[in-house]
Amino acid sequence: MNILIIYAHPEPKSFNAALKDLAVSELTTLGHEVKVSDLYAMNFKAVANSEDFNERENKEFLKYAVEQKHAVKTNSFSKDIEEEQKKLVWADFVIFQFPLWWYSAPAILKGWFDRVFASGFIYSRDMRYDTGGLKGRKAMLSITTGSPKDAYTPHGMDGDIHEKILYHINHGMLYFAGLEPVEPFIAWTPSHDEEDRNVYLEKYKWRLNHLLDIPSINYHPQSHYDENHQLKSKYR
Amino acid sequence: MNILIIYAHPEPKSFNAALKDLAVSELTTLGHEVKVSDLYAMNFKAVANSEDFNERENKEFLKYAVEQKHAVKTNSFSKDIEEEQKKLVWADFVIFQFPLWWYSAPAILKGWFDRVFASGFIYSRDMRYDTGGLKGRKAMLSITTGSPKDAYTPHGMDGDIHEKILYHINHGMLYFAGLEPVEPFIAWTPSHDEEDRNVYLEKYKWRLNHLLDIPSINYHPQSHYDENHQLKSKYR
Repeated sequence: MNILIIYAHPEPKSFNAALKDLAVSELTTLGHEVKVSDLYAMNFKAVANSEDFNERENKEFLKYAVEQKHAVKTNSFSKDIEEEQKKLVWADFVIFQFPLWWYSAPAILKGWFDRVFASGFIYSRDMRYDTGGLKGRKAMLSITTGSPKDAYTPHGMDGDIHEKILYHINHGMLYFAGLEPVEPFIAWTPSHDEEDRNVYLEKYKWRLNHLLDIPSINYHPQSHYDENHQLKSKYR
Repeated sequence: MNILIIYAHPEPKSFNAALKDLAVSELTTLGHEVKVSDLYAMNFKAVANSEDFNERENKEFLKYAVEQKHAVKTNSFSKDIEEEQKKLVWADFVIFQFPLWWYSAPAILKGWFDRVFASGFIYSRDMRYDTGGLKGRKAMLSITTGSPKDAYTPHGMDGDIHEKILYHINHGMLYFAGLEPVEPFIAWTPSHDEEDRNVYLEKYKWRLNHLLDIPSINYHPQSHYDENHQLKSKYR
């Protein structure tokens, strides 16, 4: 497969870097083609603004999604955005490697979504979720947390990791874009214990060897919703 | 009151700007002291990295939270972070004005949380949620959405706005920091209808006149959780 790793951590000696490095070596050994977007190393521009377009539909009023649609039509995205979009089209499987900061992605990665997941490329009125622009591809979050697993259970202090915390990424970003998100790989507070880290690396290695066997997260296709965007009662 | 508005939109003619401008004029007229952090106008640095510290605890390995704690002790944050932290200490009420992009905050605002909500200032082992560093202050999200209200109901296509989408911000960022989040103000897809916009501006004006009457979101204090971070059964 063609596998794209989107990696966001400022420290090359971090555990996130170790997970990313393991993925590159293991997946390459398995015969996959691997590309990495190391957002910190690339000094990736996080902030969406008018500089993202070489040409403007409306120079007087920046409506970001309108300019994205225009840039898709006129092929006029800034070079860094265009390159990331090409990698996405190339990929069969996308891995997102990052530390959970403030219960979400680090800003540099959020900016990657803001800028690369463009209107007209990723979504439109008739193209979102199971019909999103990246359909046919799978994706997986691989994250590290600062709180222990207990805190992320349904009655946990930080909120259920799947339903409350990662939903806005897995459903709102990946699935919205047409990607089929699989169960995330989560290393719970790995920074506190070296032995723990090795256990996680072994677990991750196993997973990298079974990427296509990881269960997908069950989200509803658009056809399960009625004209008022409500889940039809038979699917509840 | 001292009211801080954190505002994140690249276009001064946007509806987000109109809501921010209304808040400034209305709150000032009401006799409040108002400060605005206009993140785009400030060209606020979104990406957390080693440049955020004038002094380092460990120059060989960037562990961001460790350096934050060190910077709190040694008063050595970069100037932009220090200034935002001072505004937070000054404030009695914080309003966050932004468009919901990819079901979360724009990267420039996420970076503000990553960088300004520092370990040792906002949280520590014994200081989080109801005991977080900003306790005694209230906060409110004021957002615009790209999908209609229907899509954000409990059975809606995009996921419940409170439980699934805004939870990671209201609970994970604001409440974690000790702020008491009140019900958000939400302008649903305002960009499609000018009349609609005026209705929202009137609604928002009413709300600005009743800031302290807005119900707080009911989150559990830490005392409701047991030693395994589980909500005690009597509170379920």
